[in-house]
Amino acid sequence: MIRIGWMVVLFTGLLCAQLREEALAAGLKPIPKTQQALIDYVERPGNPITPQKIELGKMLYFDPRLSKSGIISCNTCHNLGLGGVDGIPAAIGHKWRANPQGLNSPTVFNAVFHIAQFHDGRSPHLADQASGPIQNPVEMAISREELEARIGSIPEYVARFEESFRGEKPAVTLENIAKAIEAFEATLVTPGRFDRFLHGDVRALSGAEKEGLEVFIRKDCTRCHNGMGIGGGSVERFPEVGQFPYAHIGSFKGDRDGRTRVPTLRNLTLTAPYFHNGSVWSIEEAVRIMAEAQLGVHISRQEVDQISTFLRALEGEIPRVVIPMLPTSTASTPRPDPLE
Amino acid sequence: MIRIGWMVVLFTGLLCAQLREEALAAGLKPIPKTQQALIDYVERPGNPITPQKIELGKMLYFDPRLSKSGIISCNTCHNLGLGGVDGIPAAIGHKWRANPQGLNSPTVFNAVFHIAQFHDGRSPHLADQASGPIQNPVEMAISREELEARIGSIPEYVARFEESFRGEKPAVTLENIAKAIEAFEATLVTPGRFDRFLHGDVRALSGAEKEGLEVFIRKDCTRCHNGMGIGGGSVERFPEVGQFPYAHIGSFKGDRDGRTRVPTLRNLTLTAPYFHNGSVWSIEEAVRIMAEAQLGVHISRQEVDQISTFLRALEGEIPRVVIPMLPTSTASTPRPDPLE
Repeated sequence: MIRIGWMVVLFTGLLCAQLREEALAAGLKPIPKTQQALIDYVERPGNPITPQKIELGKMLYFDPRLSKSGIISCNTCHNLGLGGVDGIPAAIGHKWRANPQGLNSPTVFNAVFHIAQFHDGRSPHLADQASGPIQNPVEMAISREELEARIGSIPEYVARFEESFRGEKPAVTLENIAKAIEAFEATLVTPGRFDRFLHGDVRALSGAEKEGLEVFIRKDCTRCHNGMGIGGGSVERFPEVGQFPYAHIGSFKGDRDGRTRVPTLRNLTLTAPYFHNGSVWSIEEAVRIMAEAQLGVHISRQEVDQISTFLRALEGEIPRVVIPMLPTSTASTPRPDPLE
Repeated sequence: MIRIGWMVVLFTGLLCAQLREEALAAGLKPIPKTQQALIDYVERPGNPITPQKIELGKMLYFDPRLSKSGIISCNTCHNLGLGGVDGIPAAIGHKWRANPQGLNSPTVFNAVFHIAQFHDGRSPHLADQASGPIQNPVEMAISREELEARIGSIPEYVARFEESFRGEKPAVTLENIAKAIEAFEATLVTPGRFDRFLHGDVRALSGAEKEGLEVFIRKDCTRCHNGMGIGGGSVERFPEVGQFPYAHIGSFKGDRDGRTRVPTLRNLTLTAPYFHNGSVWSIEEAVRIMAEAQLGVHISRQEVDQISTFLRALEGEIPRVVIPMLPTSTASTPRPDPLE
């Protein structure tokens, strides 16, 4: 009996090691183990990531003075306490305007692993992305001039920008605001049990989660959901039909070929409702729809459950963020007026 | 020379000690040195403060699901990164409605030292206060039923309420939500250099700040701005005249005798604009107006500057708050709809 027991353990171990090989072969990648390795991976040539810039970016991320009204910050729609999202179908912005394209706020966690930002993938990186909502009339609605005047009137901010962007005059520009936010957001990654599994600790996932991973690979979900983001590496077409609740709605039509950026599947447990239009609240329903609409396969209820069990294991460790104390406005700071 | 030097030091020391005695005699009080002493001072009989309840209250304070829309939290208007305020003249709430009374959001920091909450002092304590904005149609706009159903549908919240309010069935009630928030807010006090001065470290204030304190006491500012909050201990009438920008505006008329609750002066550097209607942005202007309108005295520009220098020394140490990870909604959680 003891001998049989050991054989089972050995056999299971081999199977697990094989599953890990399959996952890596399917393109799934773990988040690097150290912050330095992460930064080496995500840092862009145009925006070196320094501790000072990360801290400045964190302040800006939480500062509602980046909006015309003075009451909407990046964290309003990409709430770090709520999985990096707002938990509603479509974003609400300046003067309570709903997103006219009916678009759901994507999570900021692990967004750095996306090859392109926004649902239509029109933005090449997070710094470019960050400058969008700041100026968008239905989001934060501030002009470049007003924003630069406001932040540039606050001595502590000016000093921090001059430290993070040495030699640049002026240092407080919309581009540098966005770059600092990018540096902070690059740290918002959430390694978890699945990463430990991919790094070689095959016991980091439960038996049921490993079964789910196996189905996930076998059903070819990894065709789009791969890489370090487990999604985010491509833009894909999907059927423009009313039978699926995630069809394009409002004026959103995807990119010029009608494609939508594949999102990360990490922390799916925290980021409902799903799809670019926030139309689906259940992981199981989202899995069923994707299999049918994207892969053109029917999967059984059991398989839906198995895949969903695996997806729930993608919840990672959310970074611990201390609320930054924001520098105070001065007599020369243009005053926000939410009703203007 | 050395002997004269020592005599100056001795004499200055005596003067400082005397100023401290005068400050205490004028009713100014330091924040207790330890958290336990603070809790002993602020704890109400009906709401024992425990670490579990503080943590629960912190989660609720940051949770936008306490609003009908799902996007406004306590922290939206009482932003801990911005001195506990929103930095705009009058609060903006549900569906971007401006506060119809034109009222400015008071700071949450040190609010526990106020004898009554809201500008008209109608609320006896923080738990009573917290339940107001949650239900107010121009603030968070949620009904008791909807709120209790929402929070009560989230298992982690239910467990935490049952731990903090043992034996109560149901534990998730509007009253207990407000009590947990009160427990958290009771910890939001900001001891600083002035407290160290009052505790006996007479070198904690600079010479100019001590001069300002001396003028502050001599001009009788301490008649209303006293106690641990340096204000917050009474409601006071003020001239209902148009000559002062802080006259009642909109439909706000104070309490039934036309009186307004005296606010804390702590962290004034962080909480502009000032007065219940947020009409004044400069500390100097606020000081000048108060002297003339409330004390009926004319004070020189030098005295205004001296008092303002002292007031700036009332900026304290803001507690370090880690953003709480909020428990996720479930399939049975009623979904927020910001457009409803």
